[in-house]
Amino acid sequence: MKRVEIIAIGREILRGQTLDTNSHWLARRITALGARVGRIVVPDDEVEAIAQEIRRAFRNGAEVIITTGGMGPTFDDRTLEGVAAAVGVPLEIDPWALDFVRRRYEEFYRKGFVDDPSLTPQREKMARLPKGATPLPNPVGAAPGVFIKMEEGVIFSLPGVPREMKPLFEEEVLPRLKEILGVGAYLEEELDTGLKDESALAQLIEKVMKKIPGVYIKSKPTRFGADVSLKVVLSAAGKEEAEIRTRLSEAKGLLTSMLTPSD
Amino acid sequence: MKRVEIIAIGREILRGQTLDTNSHWLARRITALGARVGRIVVPDDEVEAIAQEIRRAFRNGAEVIITTGGMGPTFDDRTLEGVAAAVGVPLEIDPWALDFVRRRYEEFYRKGFVDDPSLTPQREKMARLPKGATPLPNPVGAAPGVFIKMEEGVIFSLPGVPREMKPLFEEEVLPRLKEILGVGAYLEEELDTGLKDESALAQLIEKVMKKIPGVYIKSKPTRFGADVSLKVVLSAAGKEEAEIRTRLSEAKGLLTSMLTPSD
Repeated sequence: MKRVEIIAIGREILRGQTLDTNSHWLARRITALGARVGRIVVPDDEVEAIAQEIRRAFRNGAEVIITTGGMGPTFDDRTLEGVAAAVGVPLEIDPWALDFVRRRYEEFYRKGFVDDPSLTPQREKMARLPKGATPLPNPVGAAPGVFIKMEEGVIFSLPGVPREMKPLFEEEVLPRLKEILGVGAYLEEELDTGLKDESALAQLIEKVMKKIPGVYIKSKPTRFGADVSLKVVLSAAGKEEAEIRTRLSEAKGLLTSMLTPSD
Repeated sequence: MKRVEIIAIGREILRGQTLDTNSHWLARRITALGARVGRIVVPDDEVEAIAQEIRRAFRNGAEVIITTGGMGPTFDDRTLEGVAAAVGVPLEIDPWALDFVRRRYEEFYRKGFVDDPSLTPQREKMARLPKGATPLPNPVGAAPGVFIKMEEGVIFSLPGVPREMKPLFEEEVLPRLKEILGVGAYLEEELDTGLKDESALAQLIEKVMKKIPGVYIKSKPTRFGADVSLKVVLSAAGKEEAEIRTRLSEAKGLLTSMLTPSD
């Protein structure tokens, strides 16, 4: 299964001002594509910290890196500087991106969103991409996304505002990702175990996972209580849905039989 | 300012099954103590992946590491194994922790939370701590927290269930943390700029931060729109509240004067 790493950039996350919901949303989407999110990291928004996490992700074996945040016009939006440093290329004005940013601010000016349509240095900054990168049109905001293809793998850089990040993912990242990951299938099923005690359930899960490889079983963490019934999520991913479905129902059947008291 | 790193452990986060709210909550609490969260990372729940992130955190200069999750009875709760590997000590049954776990399950049995009060190997596992660690009583659940003091810094390991993590932090981590970090003060203030355009605001923020060091100004990301008014958060931390308050109001005054059109 291909490994994906997510790098969420923005000091507001580290200060506890913003809850990072982007990584959660991306993790769910990527898992559903049959790939595996191997790590999520929030570095400080400094060039070297960002570059270091990108290099580490490739060293960890990631074939896809997705960054979110730090793509805007302000001085602390340093994602593309960090990406360029990690990749070892300079930042350069991309003519297509520059035209995109220019047209966006003209549109925002016409709509009364900004008082001035001109390409200030801050706005121009959003068109300075790592050399060789492909800009991705942002369906909502002004900052283009970025796609970089390297020997080790690919990097997608997306804006941090969820309402820009999500449509950019759906329209520009998803089609490329499906191709990179291969057509994958992923299924998950929940099972109510009727058990109250996680430590008892742990033994059963372990047995089922050893017997049926390729099925992942995770008990959902919960509180202790007399009225608790622990739930587990069984999941599997692979090339073909039919094959996965068989494996999952086999695991579910085995676990259910273990949960049923024999008399 | 002392550097803190947060390591959130649990494959359910990487699968997109659970939104990691613990790190956000901890980041806010730590920032308010006048310390700086330098990195948040979610490694896969494998011993070597966890150990690696702990070593990296110390290498990054972290003086405090807080881990959440992976402290329970199931086979994929591997946090303490990872911590022990990073620290270079074996896991050992801690007599105090074992007694704590035993008494917890006796209590849970009396309350009807579990069907069996006995110390199964899965339950005993929660009392196997890195050699030399101090167990911290969990006010709610069965798994003790862990405190380790090293030359490089300290490690706190907390459970992942928020309703166990939060009271354990308040009761056992906070007093120790205050001592480690020194008595610190932190203030933040929000300012409505009346501006619609982040790229215009960016220049002003840059000027103020250069003029008044020690004040951090962050514009809150938002959408584009004719009705938008951008907000910024000004923050500062230090030893004494009076000194911080002066610095903050100086920065706020300067920014406000820049925002007021002169005629």
